[in-house]
Amino acid sequence: MIRIIDGAKEMEKIEKILSRSQMDSKEVLQRVDEILEEVKQNGDEALLKFTQMYDKNGLTELKVTHEEIAKAKANIDENLKNAIINAIGNITNFHKKQIKEGFTINEGSDIMLGQMVMPIEKVGIYVPGGTASYPSTVMMNAIPANLAGVKEIIMTTPADRDGRIKDSVLVAADLLGVTQIYKVGGAQAIGALCYGTESITKVDKIVGPGNIFVAMAKHKVSGLVGIDMIAGPSEVVVIADKKANPRFIAADLIAQAEHDKRAASIVVTDCNILAKKIQEQISIQLKTLKRSEIAEEALSEYGAIILCANKDECFDIANSLAPEHLEILTDNPFEDYKKIKNAGAIFLGEYTPEPVGDYYAGPNHTLPTSRTARFSSALSVDDFYKKTSLLYYSKEALKKSANDIMLLADNEGLTGHANSIKVRMEEM
Amino acid sequence: MIRIIDGAKEMEKIEKILSRSQMDSKEVLQRVDEILEEVKQNGDEALLKFTQMYDKNGLTELKVTHEEIAKAKANIDENLKNAIINAIGNITNFHKKQIKEGFTINEGSDIMLGQMVMPIEKVGIYVPGGTASYPSTVMMNAIPANLAGVKEIIMTTPADRDGRIKDSVLVAADLLGVTQIYKVGGAQAIGALCYGTESITKVDKIVGPGNIFVAMAKHKVSGLVGIDMIAGPSEVVVIADKKANPRFIAADLIAQAEHDKRAASIVVTDCNILAKKIQEQISIQLKTLKRSEIAEEALSEYGAIILCANKDECFDIANSLAPEHLEILTDNPFEDYKKIKNAGAIFLGEYTPEPVGDYYAGPNHTLPTSRTARFSSALSVDDFYKKTSLLYYSKEALKKSANDIMLLADNEGLTGHANSIKVRMEEM
Repeated sequence: MIRIIDGAKEMEKIEKILSRSQMDSKEVLQRVDEILEEVKQNGDEALLKFTQMYDKNGLTELKVTHEEIAKAKANIDENLKNAIINAIGNITNFHKKQIKEGFTINEGSDIMLGQMVMPIEKVGIYVPGGTASYPSTVMMNAIPANLAGVKEIIMTTPADRDGRIKDSVLVAADLLGVTQIYKVGGAQAIGALCYGTESITKVDKIVGPGNIFVAMAKHKVSGLVGIDMIAGPSEVVVIADKKANPRFIAADLIAQAEHDKRAASIVVTDCNILAKKIQEQISIQLKTLKRSEIAEEALSEYGAIILCANKDECFDIANSLAPEHLEILTDNPFEDYKKIKNAGAIFLGEYTPEPVGDYYAGPNHTLPTSRTARFSSALSVDDFYKKTSLLYYSKEALKKSANDIMLLADNEGLTGHANSIKVRMEEM
Repeated sequence: MIRIIDGAKEMEKIEKILSRSQMDSKEVLQRVDEILEEVKQNGDEALLKFTQMYDKNGLTELKVTHEEIAKAKANIDENLKNAIINAIGNITNFHKKQIKEGFTINEGSDIMLGQMVMPIEKVGIYVPGGTASYPSTVMMNAIPANLAGVKEIIMTTPADRDGRIKDSVLVAADLLGVTQIYKVGGAQAIGALCYGTESITKVDKIVGPGNIFVAMAKHKVSGLVGIDMIAGPSEVVVIADKKANPRFIAADLIAQAEHDKRAASIVVTDCNILAKKIQEQISIQLKTLKRSEIAEEALSEYGAIILCANKDECFDIANSLAPEHLEILTDNPFEDYKKIKNAGAIFLGEYTPEPVGDYYAGPNHTLPTSRTARFSSALSVDDFYKKTSLLYYSKEALKKSANDIMLLADNEGLTGHANSIKVRMEEM
């Protein structure tokens, strides 16, 4: 069962809970190194070998065909398809506001400066397989990539034992114009996207969540290719006052906890009675759910109800935790959210539970975990751009600035830098 | 001497030159681990110990005093000070264009979504010491941090054998309102900024260049704190046609090469005669410069003049190299730059040598190296923000979307997610 603890006394313990990492296995790291190296050397042959070894689906051809996509479109439940289309609309509307344009300063004069904004050329999206194979992963990654103008989006995802990919995943990919889809997962998929193989084009950036093999492989290849953040286990912090509904809060804590045995569900409240009621509600609701075992373990290992002396302390603690998801279930969430300095996403009021954001409302669900919201942000259109500075000085402009630049260069001990100005002055 | 090579045949070799890394020493990594651990455990005591060990300046107090700053301000050459002030003006003007505001959608209605843009609370700036102690490092990091609204900027830089920091570095820091300055360098400085000590406040993000110890320490603590990119050795690619001035090009190649024995200076041209003239000019100019030994080694190890069949091939090769700095010395740079897809910064025409950007013009000099311009960008104001998503659904709005959200949750096998919507529907 979820613990009730004293906020003032146990902050360090709580920060440790949120700082938990999954990146500490040497054996996994070594295996990942081997897989990456073999994919780099042997290309498709290695991909087929590891796919057989791990996914056991006997595939000899990894590319998803037009026929498979057509079948998925024919098979999918009409209501589910509409839900996907509505979600795509909402997510697109939100991310459109993140579209960025370049700028220039002083165009046409002696000095022109600027910043060009260009899409990354090729992007790989990793979509996990098995129970965690989500159409929302496709949407949350492909939509911002599309809006940035990325021309080639290559998706990889492991197929099931029958060699199939979920209809909803294929339909979402098709609706979003994903260029190519390959049935390959794990570190081998990351290797293929980074190094390229005979059949899979190498990309400039890899995004998308995955298990520890995928996370470590992304970490390993980062620098050769760009990567998005490497997410830790998911987490929610709920700030609740005495009027908050314990039934809703319990449901939201469980929703978070069912993701993963290491997910963290935390309440911060100044109301002791509410704390007890939340515990009761969790017991009642857990009984009815598919993944209750996972949720129960997560709640007792990484869950906590933190009791605070007053409302201000609740917000101080939430800011220090810098959670991925923050729900504000107080009297006046529209005022209270202004006190938040560190959070990935904030959910306001009792009718905005986190799943509204996971699938549907519009903002991205790829969010900074493990207290990194202190310095990082949700995935956005910006993650699919690169920006290039532009500089132009005319002869006249250089002449005017030459002394300043040479003084600075000499002060820094770089006479070759000063020389590059000097040779130009001498030819004037 | 710099080689002339055939572009079409030797692309792989050239890409390898640019992909060179400095991060491969196991001994350095182990030493960095030890230093970080000791700073984490022993705080200031460890800082003083390592400062004595590496900087050998006998310091017992690391904080820079008001008196020291006052002395630097009194001592600095008036012209140098004015050059710094002019550079600060230019850099501020450019980076102002990067200031970002949040947004909200549908404010006041049933659904409100938004993105808050907030400054990172505390930032650490590392400024290298010794010959590479540059006021421009202070400017290029502190200015975007200030414009983002960062409240606390903590700077660390190693002092010289006499326990002093360069006047120009202190004056730049003072002009830019850096909150605190500490005389500590290396991995120990990164440890102090990450973990905090009795005297140094821990920060949320660390930026700034450094030697291999600093780079590895930043890599090690990244995740606990944010970091900027870890830069490889610097590089320039010059695209030149037959009309380009070989004297200018030689000067620019040398300016790049004097940074570091591993710096890369590369020309891409379709003119064989120009290539030969550049070689001649390098020999002549090298004789007159302080750091000619470093430059000479860099030019012969990592320099190249790549001969192409025609102008289009020049641009293809430049795009594939994705250089940190790209100079376009062609007939029509204002048309030609539009062919560039991958570069950190582009310098247009013969009077915009790279040093104009290193110190002075305005765009940031912290740029993506080692071909990472394919997916990453110059340091900018954006690196000092974090963005937080805002979501609000009213009771009515949730009711309308409930079925879609529950369908998606069930499709993803997350019944606890569906349950968090269901309990709310049941209480309506």
